[in-house]
Amino acid sequence: MRTIKVVMAFCLLGFSANAQNKDSAMFKRIADDIFTNSKAYDNLRFLCKQVGPRLSGSPQAEKSVKETFRMMKELGADTVYLQECMVPHWVRGAKESALLVDDKGTTFSLNICALGNSVGTGKKGLKAEVIEVRSFAELDALGEKGVKGKIVFYNFPMNPTNVETFRSYGEAGQFRGRGPSMAAKYGAVGAMVRSLASNIDDYPHTGTTTYNDSFPKIPAIAVSTRHAEYVSAELKKKKGLQMYFRTECEMLPDVKSHNVIGEIRGTEFPNEVITVGGHLDSWDLAEGAHDDGAGCVQSMEIIRVYKKLGIKPKRTIRVVMFMNEENGLRGGRKYAEVATAEKNKKFIFALESDAGGFTPRAFGFTAEEPVLNKLRNWVPLFKPYGVYEFSAGGGGADIGPLRPLGTTLAGLRPDSQRYFDHHHAANDTFEMVSKRELELGAINMVLLLYVVDQYGL
Amino acid sequence: MRTIKVVMAFCLLGFSANAQNKDSAMFKRIADDIFTNSKAYDNLRFLCKQVGPRLSGSPQAEKSVKETFRMMKELGADTVYLQECMVPHWVRGAKESALLVDDKGTTFSLNICALGNSVGTGKKGLKAEVIEVRSFAELDALGEKGVKGKIVFYNFPMNPTNVETFRSYGEAGQFRGRGPSMAAKYGAVGAMVRSLASNIDDYPHTGTTTYNDSFPKIPAIAVSTRHAEYVSAELKKKKGLQMYFRTECEMLPDVKSHNVIGEIRGTEFPNEVITVGGHLDSWDLAEGAHDDGAGCVQSMEIIRVYKKLGIKPKRTIRVVMFMNEENGLRGGRKYAEVATAEKNKKFIFALESDAGGFTPRAFGFTAEEPVLNKLRNWVPLFKPYGVYEFSAGGGGADIGPLRPLGTTLAGLRPDSQRYFDHHHAANDTFEMVSKRELELGAINMVLLLYVVDQYGL
Repeated sequence: MRTIKVVMAFCLLGFSANAQNKDSAMFKRIADDIFTNSKAYDNLRFLCKQVGPRLSGSPQAEKSVKETFRMMKELGADTVYLQECMVPHWVRGAKESALLVDDKGTTFSLNICALGNSVGTGKKGLKAEVIEVRSFAELDALGEKGVKGKIVFYNFPMNPTNVETFRSYGEAGQFRGRGPSMAAKYGAVGAMVRSLASNIDDYPHTGTTTYNDSFPKIPAIAVSTRHAEYVSAELKKKKGLQMYFRTECEMLPDVKSHNVIGEIRGTEFPNEVITVGGHLDSWDLAEGAHDDGAGCVQSMEIIRVYKKLGIKPKRTIRVVMFMNEENGLRGGRKYAEVATAEKNKKFIFALESDAGGFTPRAFGFTAEEPVLNKLRNWVPLFKPYGVYEFSAGGGGADIGPLRPLGTTLAGLRPDSQRYFDHHHAANDTFEMVSKRELELGAINMVLLLYVVDQYGL
Repeated sequence: MRTIKVVMAFCLLGFSANAQNKDSAMFKRIADDIFTNSKAYDNLRFLCKQVGPRLSGSPQAEKSVKETFRMMKELGADTVYLQECMVPHWVRGAKESALLVDDKGTTFSLNICALGNSVGTGKKGLKAEVIEVRSFAELDALGEKGVKGKIVFYNFPMNPTNVETFRSYGEAGQFRGRGPSMAAKYGAVGAMVRSLASNIDDYPHTGTTTYNDSFPKIPAIAVSTRHAEYVSAELKKKKGLQMYFRTECEMLPDVKSHNVIGEIRGTEFPNEVITVGGHLDSWDLAEGAHDDGAGCVQSMEIIRVYKKLGIKPKRTIRVVMFMNEENGLRGGRKYAEVATAEKNKKFIFALESDAGGFTPRAFGFTAEEPVLNKLRNWVPLFKPYGVYEFSAGGGGADIGPLRPLGTTLAGLRPDSQRYFDHHHAANDTFEMVSKRELELGAINMVLLLYVVDQYGL
């Protein structure tokens, strides 16, 4: 009954049941081969353990460029090349530390890290009274009188009641992003943000803060969720608590880096380009396994499986390792800039995986309604592989700049429950990735690229 | 458009849009409270870390009875009581070991463990030539001539191409279950089975073997997947390889144990019983976090959240911690036996969670077609909580014996990709469970029980 409905839906929309069966068989061939022969997990191990943390501008970031260039060659890409871009070069510097200090001089050491792109305190560090706020409204109410000369502690937990954790991340993220400058506006000398983590543990989670040039740039740190709770409890018990913290991070001049691009040339419409990628850079504290080594190695998998199964794409498939998503997005912008200049090419579709190597559940699309509706006809074929939904809205930071070219954007949406336990923290390690979950994500990505390539949009 | 369709479906089937909105609001209240105040994760930590491995007949199993009795009292159950049952008492005994020995006397130590319910070799151990087979057909082809006096090594990997890992477990499981006796039939003196694991690592995975009384009971062990690959490779290189292994496990006389039952009494139909549970016992090698501490603590959550939100069930809710699922199923059988004798009660529905504390994806039902169709009308309300499918077939080992009473059976179906990395092995630990995934499972279980209680079947 259900099958009949599916077949009818396909017929009505111009797909024949025969095509459906053929595609279903091809889906199975692709999935079986990835589950059996994928290099994604081994490549991820290499990126995490042999290259390691790879913040833009670091030697490891350069090593990751070289190594993914090699990987795509070995996987059998027709061509692999580099695309130069300048990237910010922020460095964390010497070991960071923070102490909570009460009026008797008793100290308690806090698990903290500097926020990305933030200024440091310098060697001497910074000591001041710490005050807690839970919203910008509270900050505004305190005003200059309550804030000046102090360290503002933003203690806004990620809302546990959103099933989709990215939503809670979006809500809480404003304090990391704008918080330091909003505090500086009222004369604060430092800012500390509760880590954007959905669990209670001891890892501080870094991530970019964005200074507003109208206000002084003040040192900014993140504190582990457990210690955020601790500081908050202490503040309720004791008056005039002070904090000392020291960070020696700094922003150095931009340096040259690269996106890495591997291509399989299209046989029928070589000038129509389908882009797929993840970002190569990671935070300096983490192996960048889920964020976003996973997306990189999943994206490369199409080269391996197409060569292995002898699938020749009609359109050109470009696998892109984007540089600098974390603290500048320069790679994504450069890719779109070059694409815009390639007047003879049409960038019809781009897919990004940058939400972790977890079990896939859906794809999100930024697309015109008729395109999305056309894509949705394929959902029944994806269900056996765990993807039940093609939803409106989605893509990825690196491919976002392609949208003005009319490119349809897609983002893999894996299950999000564990993502923010690891995101931007030292426990984003290879061991936290399940081989099968990673591969199932890669499978669905290749399947989506397959139908887009075969049938166009 | 989609909303209209959903509403229409509800109206056609006798549900009003109003009821749907009311239920949707209640779903949100339940989910929010579990994500915010659940005790499931803390209770699981207690079971794993303060009680630990709890094989039937062990002191820890008895401790788990006492502690879950306390937990359900504390959560606010109207009554909590024990249901006596006799359970097998298999003990692993002294430390197990195994060596691969070549003709030069070079030895290689293998990661092994005795299979549950198996006989041991005794202190002296067992030494014999080892031969590998990949199927029962291969074993039959070798016959007595090829097998007699040897150790049979069943090296059948779990098929990686099944998206649903339980399917591969089912296919590979026959070698652990029947393999030793099938080998003994041809005169083998011992059996070694490749661990039922979907990854390659160093943990041996135990689990029950079932002897056929027609043949001698021979000692049986599982070997880690990595060492299964190693032994296989060595067998290809060297002739006449021998193995030595020693296990001192034994089956002792049955002992008394208990199911633990917590009830919330129904207000309208107290004699209609809705059962929900997991199993309290675990293998002795593991903390039993995913298998099945998770199912136990998820099941208890309905008591907490109903009391907290003041929800009074129409029907009686029985939360059951089943004893002895792993190597006897005596708890499940006893529960059904007692239920059969309770002539004044109707056991309308039973739900089990015994597939790990992973992110939920579906429920599986053993139900008559009209019942399943009725249940399926609720699927749209579950989608926001990650459950997209109510499928035919499912339940759980412990609730299975209720089926002859006409009970509709349901099983939570979490994502299965990681389950067999941990199943029955020492790495089935608390740390491998995500708080949010565990809670999301509990949420969906309570939601299902809620609609069944409110609307009946």
